[in-house]
Amino acid sequence: MLAPTLREDPTEAEIASHKLMLRAGLIRKLTSGVYSYLPLGWRILHKIESIVREEMDKAGALEVKLPAILPSELWKETGRWDIYGKELFRIKDRHDREFCLGPTHEEIITDMVRTNVKSYREAPLNLYQIQTKYRDEIRPRFGVMRSREFIMKDAYSFDLDEAGLEKSYKTMYETYNRIFDRCGLKYKVVHADPGPIGGGFSQEYMVLSPTGEDEILHCEKCDYAASGGMAKYKVSGVSGQVSGKTPKIEKVKTPNVRTIEELDAFLKAPSSRMIKTLIYKAGDKAIAVLIRGDHALNEARLKKILGREDIELADETMIVEATKAPMGFAGPIGLSGIKIYADKEVTEIADGITGGNEKDVHLIHVVYGRDYKADEIESLRLAREGDSCPECDGKLTMTRGIEVGHIFKLGTKYSEKMKAEYLDEKGKTKPFIMGCYGIGVSRIAGAVIEQNYDDFGIKWPMSIAPYKVAIVPVNIKEKSMSEVAEKLYKDLLALNVEVILDDREASVGVKLKDIDLIGFPVKIIIGPKGLAEGKVEIKMRSDGKTELVATAKAAGRIAEICR
Amino acid sequence: MLAPTLREDPTEAEIASHKLMLRAGLIRKLTSGVYSYLPLGWRILHKIESIVREEMDKAGALEVKLPAILPSELWKETGRWDIYGKELFRIKDRHDREFCLGPTHEEIITDMVRTNVKSYREAPLNLYQIQTKYRDEIRPRFGVMRSREFIMKDAYSFDLDEAGLEKSYKTMYETYNRIFDRCGLKYKVVHADPGPIGGGFSQEYMVLSPTGEDEILHCEKCDYAASGGMAKYKVSGVSGQVSGKTPKIEKVKTPNVRTIEELDAFLKAPSSRMIKTLIYKAGDKAIAVLIRGDHALNEARLKKILGREDIELADETMIVEATKAPMGFAGPIGLSGIKIYADKEVTEIADGITGGNEKDVHLIHVVYGRDYKADEIESLRLAREGDSCPECDGKLTMTRGIEVGHIFKLGTKYSEKMKAEYLDEKGKTKPFIMGCYGIGVSRIAGAVIEQNYDDFGIKWPMSIAPYKVAIVPVNIKEKSMSEVAEKLYKDLLALNVEVILDDREASVGVKLKDIDLIGFPVKIIIGPKGLAEGKVEIKMRSDGKTELVATAKAAGRIAEICR
Repeated sequence: MLAPTLREDPTEAEIASHKLMLRAGLIRKLTSGVYSYLPLGWRILHKIESIVREEMDKAGALEVKLPAILPSELWKETGRWDIYGKELFRIKDRHDREFCLGPTHEEIITDMVRTNVKSYREAPLNLYQIQTKYRDEIRPRFGVMRSREFIMKDAYSFDLDEAGLEKSYKTMYETYNRIFDRCGLKYKVVHADPGPIGGGFSQEYMVLSPTGEDEILHCEKCDYAASGGMAKYKVSGVSGQVSGKTPKIEKVKTPNVRTIEELDAFLKAPSSRMIKTLIYKAGDKAIAVLIRGDHALNEARLKKILGREDIELADETMIVEATKAPMGFAGPIGLSGIKIYADKEVTEIADGITGGNEKDVHLIHVVYGRDYKADEIESLRLAREGDSCPECDGKLTMTRGIEVGHIFKLGTKYSEKMKAEYLDEKGKTKPFIMGCYGIGVSRIAGAVIEQNYDDFGIKWPMSIAPYKVAIVPVNIKEKSMSEVAEKLYKDLLALNVEVILDDREASVGVKLKDIDLIGFPVKIIIGPKGLAEGKVEIKMRSDGKTELVATAKAAGRIAEICR
Repeated sequence: MLAPTLREDPTEAEIASHKLMLRAGLIRKLTSGVYSYLPLGWRILHKIESIVREEMDKAGALEVKLPAILPSELWKETGRWDIYGKELFRIKDRHDREFCLGPTHEEIITDMVRTNVKSYREAPLNLYQIQTKYRDEIRPRFGVMRSREFIMKDAYSFDLDEAGLEKSYKTMYETYNRIFDRCGLKYKVVHADPGPIGGGFSQEYMVLSPTGEDEILHCEKCDYAASGGMAKYKVSGVSGQVSGKTPKIEKVKTPNVRTIEELDAFLKAPSSRMIKTLIYKAGDKAIAVLIRGDHALNEARLKKILGREDIELADETMIVEATKAPMGFAGPIGLSGIKIYADKEVTEIADGITGGNEKDVHLIHVVYGRDYKADEIESLRLAREGDSCPECDGKLTMTRGIEVGHIFKLGTKYSEKMKAEYLDEKGKTKPFIMGCYGIGVSRIAGAVIEQNYDDFGIKWPMSIAPYKVAIVPVNIKEKSMSEVAEKLYKDLLALNVEVILDDREASVGVKLKDIDLIGFPVKIIIGPKGLAEGKVEIKMRSDGKTELVATAKAAGRIAEICR
């Protein structure tokens, strides 16, 4: 065996799973965001793969294997060659042809289906693969959680109509629940932002953990849950509605005060009275977005409202041109030639403060309707903890999650662009209705650890443990112990129990530390005291429960525990 | 199922396996040398993988998974970053750091062992992986046989001494035999050229097939076999030894006669009397190599004799400088300042012909010893059919083979360069003695087909067939047939027999054509004639043998056949 355990936490690792995977000798870093799996680590991955494969097969999906080297032409057909930007690893071959290393395979599978499937008789189809994917992350971190080379299961369904997609989606939803249940994960399914994969609707499987990179808002009362950027909320009605008592608008000199925090301190007013005016670039044009000073803009929502993806904060030149003032003094009053989008709650500020579109000038006593107007009023802010649930009268709570799965209703996004069509019963050409379904296979290993560890190490659930049982003879040189250990080892193998025998010539302390660190679910200690009574000790890693069992009955009992 | 069979041979395919894998819907080309595996193709690959994994595990090897994205630094440590040339797919990440896509993993595994294994107590180790490899082949062809993205099993052994390596190597030798036997292949193990992997000794597993890319010479009488470039031969003794009767050397005018063929025609002498003089570049220097006109130089042998890898045919400038004549007139007489290496059989030409180192001039009646000398006399030519076996009194025969495996004794080539060392029992630092062992997993699929097909399609051996049994009801719309078919299908599943049911609404002719093309080992035909007698027909794809079995007993009988 090669299981090089480490006594100390590696300095490169920030979160528990990363530390423990390195310390337990499961993985080693080759270069930033790229890891080698050692034998025990790879056994875990292999088990996760097997669970995924079994459940996907049961669901009627067909396994395929698409290449990792993907020709640029297909990516250009959908426009994603440009959209993916620097996250794509790009290569040129010896003939200077352009390729990328596949981060996802919508184009490739759609191309395969359009060239090989022609008739309604051949659908529905659900094709999946378990494959290494490549993304040149800006900031790879947390070990296998966010790496540049990782293992994913991706599936793509092709249906004849929306009803078919609903059915395929539901089957995958249920399959994913079974997969994550079998891996021993506690998770929530949340409404998600489809991002660059696209389609109108998607849900993420979030493993609850304080170290998760994603924020989840979920209702305390009902089942509602969504990723931070996608959460809806009920606007709680009029807070400080315009009353007619607000004094007249007034200019104040605010030298060098540009941020909400600075303004807050300078004017001694709460940021909930500030009207933050963000200048965005939508395509070639500038737009203004108004948000309350204590709120954050939901960019995904803005994109949806505008119906376009190419939206980003304007640069200084564009801001100066739009506001006729230096950066930091934008406000809705006097802005001309650009559209203004206001969050609903901005329009309810009774006595607002905003930029004057003039250097070192802000305006106070600003009231919507009286002093300025917006072209559109929408819910534009991010939901936050304490907001009202959109589906019941509960409140939203914030937790953090690790995304381990993401399922999408793609619709015709790819099939229309790439002409993946079939002939229906009447001989009419129609585009396939697609879904796609991803699982971060290598990330699952990390997520399971985040939910299952203690000060001594990892506590693997039985289903994906590298081995279920570890036998530890207290002293391997003592023939009485080594003989019992060897016999038990062979008996367990004969019973098809995955078992490892720690036959190192090390102290029992060192051995038990390693065994607990790696986290085998069942530990068998063969020591002089027990043997004197003809017994061995069985200890569970999960809860520390111990039982003494007669040596002759040990194998049978252990097999029972592992079943 | 997605199994898009094709009626016609695709024009892009030259050999049987390539044609049949495309026609049977097992693979599709994505781009030059890059293939997608469809469900049936992937099932075959997966089965080959499982056989490889089982046998490697049984041999005590440990499975790992190394990345495909490899940092240039490690490749530079061994110098292979340059040696591999254009065959390496090179990439730069967003920070402009250099990587390659792994074509093989000696550097990476050696790095892993040097950082994680320190003591003799932790050896021997044999680490393997089943992984996608990348080589930017000049001329990808023959489908999965020579592709740019392919699946390989690579293993690396680390031993304390030569005896350990011998043992590890022997274990792998036996394991490989078992793997290829289980895949149903007929093969030869031949002495091979280690090439850029290196080490002093290697053997290839060659699947015998006229479409193989490699030449194999093997003895008709004994077990001796070697790849074309590595075959030895017994020099059959003096053929036309210098007799003293050869006339004096003489100049002849040979205007525009430069090649052996031209000379042959011009002088009406057999090419076995020609002394071919090849000017090679060894490092910076020119050398001359003398070979009989009807022989071919063995470059691998020349490299070994010179003890260097950087040897190539000299360019025109170097030839002109060395011979003081235009290209095509080189000869050993009058060459000065460069070393001459002569093949033994050149020195035995009784009445030779060679270039005069002068434009349009050749020399005839040339005799070794009398007219010229060489600095070294060696066996330098390639062996060829009809040569005497080096190990017995048999003759060598030429056949062609497909390389499916290659095992190497690397020795300390990598461990010394990269300092992969251990402390021995006395606390002394020593380099690991390495071996490495590769199997072309995806290539096996093609090789099996080359040995198992007929005019109708593929004949899969039971061990790697995509499904073992195909049930074909003659008419699926006929309830009597479809019911028997469905029941048999379920019964076989319950007996753990891998079975597929062809329930398409197609004619029985179309269905049987597809089934034979794909090549399931056992075909069950459920037709009206048989059913009238309460029987179904079992037909073997391998030899066409047929039996009629009572419907009720069919499942049991089929399970027996498939065992």
